[in-house]
Amino acid sequence: MAHTFDVAGLGNAIVDVLAPVSEQFLLDHSIAKGAMTLVDEHRATTLHAALGETVEVAGGSAANTMAGFASLGGKGVYLGKVKQDRLGEAFRASMKDTGVHYTTGMAKDGPSTALCVIAVTPDEQRSMSTYLGAAREFSEADVNADEIAASAILYIEGYMWDAPSAKAACIKAMDVAHKAGTKVAFTMSDPFLIGRYGDEFRAMMPKLDIVFANEEEAKALFEVDAFDDILQKARGWNGIAALTRSEKGCVIASKGEVHVIDAWPGVRVRDTTGAGDQFAAGFLYGLTHDMGYARSGRLAGLCAAEVISHYGARPEVNLRKLAADNALI
Amino acid sequence: MAHTFDVAGLGNAIVDVLAPVSEQFLLDHSIAKGAMTLVDEHRATTLHAALGETVEVAGGSAANTMAGFASLGGKGVYLGKVKQDRLGEAFRASMKDTGVHYTTGMAKDGPSTALCVIAVTPDEQRSMSTYLGAAREFSEADVNADEIAASAILYIEGYMWDAPSAKAACIKAMDVAHKAGTKVAFTMSDPFLIGRYGDEFRAMMPKLDIVFANEEEAKALFEVDAFDDILQKARGWNGIAALTRSEKGCVIASKGEVHVIDAWPGVRVRDTTGAGDQFAAGFLYGLTHDMGYARSGRLAGLCAAEVISHYGARPEVNLRKLAADNALI
Repeated sequence: MAHTFDVAGLGNAIVDVLAPVSEQFLLDHSIAKGAMTLVDEHRATTLHAALGETVEVAGGSAANTMAGFASLGGKGVYLGKVKQDRLGEAFRASMKDTGVHYTTGMAKDGPSTALCVIAVTPDEQRSMSTYLGAAREFSEADVNADEIAASAILYIEGYMWDAPSAKAACIKAMDVAHKAGTKVAFTMSDPFLIGRYGDEFRAMMPKLDIVFANEEEAKALFEVDAFDDILQKARGWNGIAALTRSEKGCVIASKGEVHVIDAWPGVRVRDTTGAGDQFAAGFLYGLTHDMGYARSGRLAGLCAAEVISHYGARPEVNLRKLAADNALI
Repeated sequence: MAHTFDVAGLGNAIVDVLAPVSEQFLLDHSIAKGAMTLVDEHRATTLHAALGETVEVAGGSAANTMAGFASLGGKGVYLGKVKQDRLGEAFRASMKDTGVHYTTGMAKDGPSTALCVIAVTPDEQRSMSTYLGAAREFSEADVNADEIAASAILYIEGYMWDAPSAKAACIKAMDVAHKAGTKVAFTMSDPFLIGRYGDEFRAMMPKLDIVFANEEEAKALFEVDAFDDILQKARGWNGIAALTRSEKGCVIASKGEVHVIDAWPGVRVRDTTGAGDQFAAGFLYGLTHDMGYARSGRLAGLCAAEVISHYGARPEVNLRKLAADNALI
């Protein structure tokens, strides 16, 4: 069946605000250097104001993936919650620029649009303070069943599990997908998340068609210590496991098929932020364009390689051209 | 069926003669530093004499494997040709010390026992000059059918293909193995060897049960460029492929099974000589002791890790104890 969209991405809608700062700024504001810390609204706005002039870009894991997916030429739709405030408008405008369809209604009241304050020190380290705000309020009412049913794959970020409303909405979205014959893809997002929701994620596995996990996440998910044990567990499951291994590349396992794909060669790593997001973009593009697991995995590796070669979680080049230059599209 | 031997190893019987030398020695004797050069008997004996006092140890790829196999507690028999001369006696005595059964008759005349002159400079680099001598003369008459039939696995090193007599003997040994129900394992030994005999090796694949190849060898064998393509080719073949990847560990592929096993962690590499030989020792031990592919691959990795942590191609510790200490035996 032809779908209006290849992928519907569902996640925390976050605006990244970046600014260069001095080392002293981190000390003055007690920011843990190089870390990602969840903060409340007061602290986020205080930090934001203190930064002075900032660059604002739409962020969030699944939103980053959809931006990469669109850059590859894929047809995407995004679902995620912002408030009708300045940052919410900025997020919406930024998503529109990427070419991703985005219709989730803006909250009129309640918490402000989520923001991630990124203080960049002269040594190019990124220290992040994240306020989830309105993103946490994504609810069942925001699940656009038509958009999901019109998509070949529904892609959900695990981060949504940290907010009860967003989690309930994800479960509803999966139900909609199953009824419509839309495949469900899920990214484990973070090993600590699996520490909190591992039992739920494991119980959910039979309902998932595609799972993305890096090695630490997969170890936590399957409760094993060695990569080969991950692989055997993944093969015992009935879906497509895309297991990412940083400089070791990735392994794609799906029932009878196993592909061991090396990392894209010759990459000078600058900032690994967004590697998993762009890997997912490439892999989902391959899957929805009948490229087979091996070529999809290579394309995913190329997209990840692009994003880690510079600062920031979204591609800086047209990924479709990059993929074409490397004979992958 | 219970076998008298777990593995019969067949290869070039070579004595390694090592001595510390100065940098000037390499210059005086025009030895290419760090390389392995095939030389004639005159040059080998000249170099040997010039070295003064040497340490002599039995070497050769399959012989190294059998030494490691015995160190693990496996029951092994070795087939390989030496001449009845001083080095031939030394090889025989050294093999006896390892506990490997060894009955191949010594040549009474013809070329001298093979030797590999290893000049070790103060920077611990090893420069090798190899004279194959009597090892090349291994012939069909030396194929002890009883020993092969009494073994669970016949293990052959690809290096034998460089000598017509030894190659013919290997083909006879494989026939004996097939008739007796002995499995046949083969190590590709060297990518350059596949450059010379690739067509023969490829034609021989249906007769092999187990193949050892490092990544470069496997690329040459299957005529592909990417590791995943090697893996898919190996899975299309009907045997057990043990694919070694240096610091990336190994992949074991056998029909429906695929295992991706990381390199043994925390190893400080001193000298990679013999890594493949000891990997084979560990893997063959696992296979002949019903350890399954995953545990066999881990044991193989441990044996390889031991040998690369010091100079020399044979283990310096009791491998059985080492494996027990790591809960692998």
